[in-house]
Amino acid sequence: MTEAAPDIGRPPPVEPDRDGRVDYEFGVSHELVSEVRDCLDQGRISEAGGKIAGLHAADLADLIEQIGPDLRGPLIDLLRPSFDAEIFAYLSQSLREVVLDQLEPKELAAAVAELESDDAIDLIEDLDAHQQREILDNLPPETRAVVEEGLTFPEDSAGRLMSRDLVSVPQFWTVGKTLDYLRTEADALPEDFYDVFIVDSMRRVVGAVPVSRVMRQKRSVRLADILTEDIRTVQAITDQEEVAFLFRQYGLVSAPVVDSAGRLLGVITVDDVVDVIDEEAEDDLLKLSGVPDTDIYRAVLDTTRSRFSWLFVNLLTAILASGVISMFETTIQHIVALAVLMPIVASMGGNAGTQTLTVAVRALAMRELSEANAMRVVAKEALIGTINGALFAVIVGVVAGLWFEDRLIGIVIGIAMIVNLFIAGLCGTLIPLGLARLKIDPAVASTVFLTTVTDVVGFFAFLGLAALILM
Amino acid sequence: MTEAAPDIGRPPPVEPDRDGRVDYEFGVSHELVSEVRDCLDQGRISEAGGKIAGLHAADLADLIEQIGPDLRGPLIDLLRPSFDAEIFAYLSQSLREVVLDQLEPKELAAAVAELESDDAIDLIEDLDAHQQREILDNLPPETRAVVEEGLTFPEDSAGRLMSRDLVSVPQFWTVGKTLDYLRTEADALPEDFYDVFIVDSMRRVVGAVPVSRVMRQKRSVRLADILTEDIRTVQAITDQEEVAFLFRQYGLVSAPVVDSAGRLLGVITVDDVVDVIDEEAEDDLLKLSGVPDTDIYRAVLDTTRSRFSWLFVNLLTAILASGVISMFETTIQHIVALAVLMPIVASMGGNAGTQTLTVAVRALAMRELSEANAMRVVAKEALIGTINGALFAVIVGVVAGLWFEDRLIGIVIGIAMIVNLFIAGLCGTLIPLGLARLKIDPAVASTVFLTTVTDVVGFFAFLGLAALILM
Repeated sequence: MTEAAPDIGRPPPVEPDRDGRVDYEFGVSHELVSEVRDCLDQGRISEAGGKIAGLHAADLADLIEQIGPDLRGPLIDLLRPSFDAEIFAYLSQSLREVVLDQLEPKELAAAVAELESDDAIDLIEDLDAHQQREILDNLPPETRAVVEEGLTFPEDSAGRLMSRDLVSVPQFWTVGKTLDYLRTEADALPEDFYDVFIVDSMRRVVGAVPVSRVMRQKRSVRLADILTEDIRTVQAITDQEEVAFLFRQYGLVSAPVVDSAGRLLGVITVDDVVDVIDEEAEDDLLKLSGVPDTDIYRAVLDTTRSRFSWLFVNLLTAILASGVISMFETTIQHIVALAVLMPIVASMGGNAGTQTLTVAVRALAMRELSEANAMRVVAKEALIGTINGALFAVIVGVVAGLWFEDRLIGIVIGIAMIVNLFIAGLCGTLIPLGLARLKIDPAVASTVFLTTVTDVVGFFAFLGLAALILM
Repeated sequence: MTEAAPDIGRPPPVEPDRDGRVDYEFGVSHELVSEVRDCLDQGRISEAGGKIAGLHAADLADLIEQIGPDLRGPLIDLLRPSFDAEIFAYLSQSLREVVLDQLEPKELAAAVAELESDDAIDLIEDLDAHQQREILDNLPPETRAVVEEGLTFPEDSAGRLMSRDLVSVPQFWTVGKTLDYLRTEADALPEDFYDVFIVDSMRRVVGAVPVSRVMRQKRSVRLADILTEDIRTVQAITDQEEVAFLFRQYGLVSAPVVDSAGRLLGVITVDDVVDVIDEEAEDDLLKLSGVPDTDIYRAVLDTTRSRFSWLFVNLLTAILASGVISMFETTIQHIVALAVLMPIVASMGGNAGTQTLTVAVRALAMRELSEANAMRVVAKEALIGTINGALFAVIVGVVAGLWFEDRLIGIVIGIAMIVNLFIAGLCGTLIPLGLARLKIDPAVASTVFLTTVTDVVGFFAFLGLAALILM
């Protein structure tokens, strides 16, 4: 079915416009944002309505985010008559709250009732108890029961992630009976699904048949004869990171969620997992940089407060490093060149250590670094640090020696460089491994520990050697 | 179909074992790795074979990675008689090469012929021309044609990502005719698929019908009446990051790939996109930390070389900062406390700047930061920097004043702190925005520019003010 010769042709319009801005192929364009902004700003409400008609909920969420605080209210008012609750799924946390505050509880409940159960739970779980109650009370009883039940599962568990809307049939059914069931019960079944789950009389999962396989079989074939038995099921209380690993590792599209007795509770589909994977990778990045979250729409004071604590910890470690320097005040007073050169040693150690740390934290998260190969990786990184340390010792030694016309000062900084880069490689792996052993997320605390070590060792090795050799 | 009350029960065994190691619910366990290692080490080959029988290709890849360099050869020999080429899809780049070297071209070609076309292209595209030729020559002509055609698409494009195996039918067909076609042609069609694509007589995509929807309809229904027209198609030359955005933004499971004339070429499914999303998030992390890749299985010298260049650039910026310090040698000689305190100002600026930078780089990648809101975000970050700068000015000012019993030195470091954290907020956003404007990946170069600025400004502001006020 691939007869047509491919015609690669010219690229789609991802060219920058006159102002050098890149417009993307998909999603909300800058032009649309500024057009809608102009309309709202000038009170041309129905024109704005025309421009956003037919946009996907994800694009509407982007529009709400990018339109700016001043016009966010009018935009939400415009969307309000038939607010699509799916927008919440795509909004950043701080803007969710803004939008929630602007909607009446009844409007909100009407919107939430339209959501699939997993999206509804995702929205409600982050609200405070009072807001939760208000929405739950306004939901139709059936939806409320499902949502309330979902909330009984632990946060970030498969039970919160799963959808209740699935197709399950008894194992003794035939393909024909299944097709008839799907046709007659069409309204009660989810709109799209990828697997038909096969259950026994106790609702325990015995297997699954991909929809495409059901379709290809004759009506007389028994499901029991075509089902895949060896499917991977997820416990409802399994952590979502474990779920993400499962989907990624085996390229799954959906997986059944079961209770501890193996009974079918729901289904997790890959689109829910994509969000978890996104969050997970982002988490490492943020934690290593000491940023609590990347929500650029958060209020200034909230953001300031959230960043303060990391900076405060960093201040303590910087003061510690200063303490090390102050041990050598007399030496510095005699050879002021030391004050000029000492940040180089500390900075190189910090950077080399961060390289190693990033690799180690990521490898731990991807489960490539484990007890099985930990010592090999530590030794390797220490060796890499030492080799690069030796290379930079030569470069920096020559530069410093020529700069201050003193061969000995070149030798001192060279030795300090080797020591610090060796320590950087060693600690860049040992610190995250140690934290992981202690069940502390290595991404959270590693950077602080590491830079403390490389600063202290850097200053101490350089100034200490200088005091010994040069004085 | 959700009658059964959920029985949450006890957690699955994700408890640490005696040695404090966590074993995960899914994937290869440490125990399995060490058991297989013991077997291979002691020559109990068939026992090792029994232990790995039935493992998924992804788990076999993990095993090859974790077993260590000494036993990797024997393990590959064990897998060799019927080597599953899908393993390559899960192996890290450097180990792919190790495994490739160990297999005969014919063995390899036999394995590759079993792959889906997108996986085959993914494997072959990274080989050198000689290896490519060798494998291609050993492939069956039909597979070779598909792979060679796939390689004509640009690297990292949708054309490389897509699979040729799809189901497409004419728009005038009925559900019944489609079902009959699927049943009779079962062997020629992909094993699993999620959408039936509807094409016109020119093979142009006119819409799609999810498989689950086909199943629910009566045989007499025409596809033209139930198809979704408004589907999102991808140009074959579209970049894979754009594809990842599309899938993430709209929660897609599959999307048709077309040529410039809109003719159907292939299909991209979400499992291919999950890898791209993973890579993308990881890329930001690595580039910000100056790590070319996280491949922990790469040879020591290759890794050392790849990290050297980033450290070298860092050395140049560190020397620049030293140059700034050397302008104030006389001042430092008089007040050696300045040498003790100056790293604090630079370090706090570097950390505050990195926080801002991480948020900005991530927001650019997620398309939350754009021309539409750039100036708002810059102003906000500069404000956050100034507020935190003021808070730390007080803390550090008091500490430094008491430490060196000199109120003026506290005032100097306080002012320098405010200046540097304001600059950190400003440059933490302006630098990545500027690089993005110049079409340079902001993650690659931002950190170096930023720390240069915060070091130079930090030292200059602190030492310059000290020279003015204290001398």
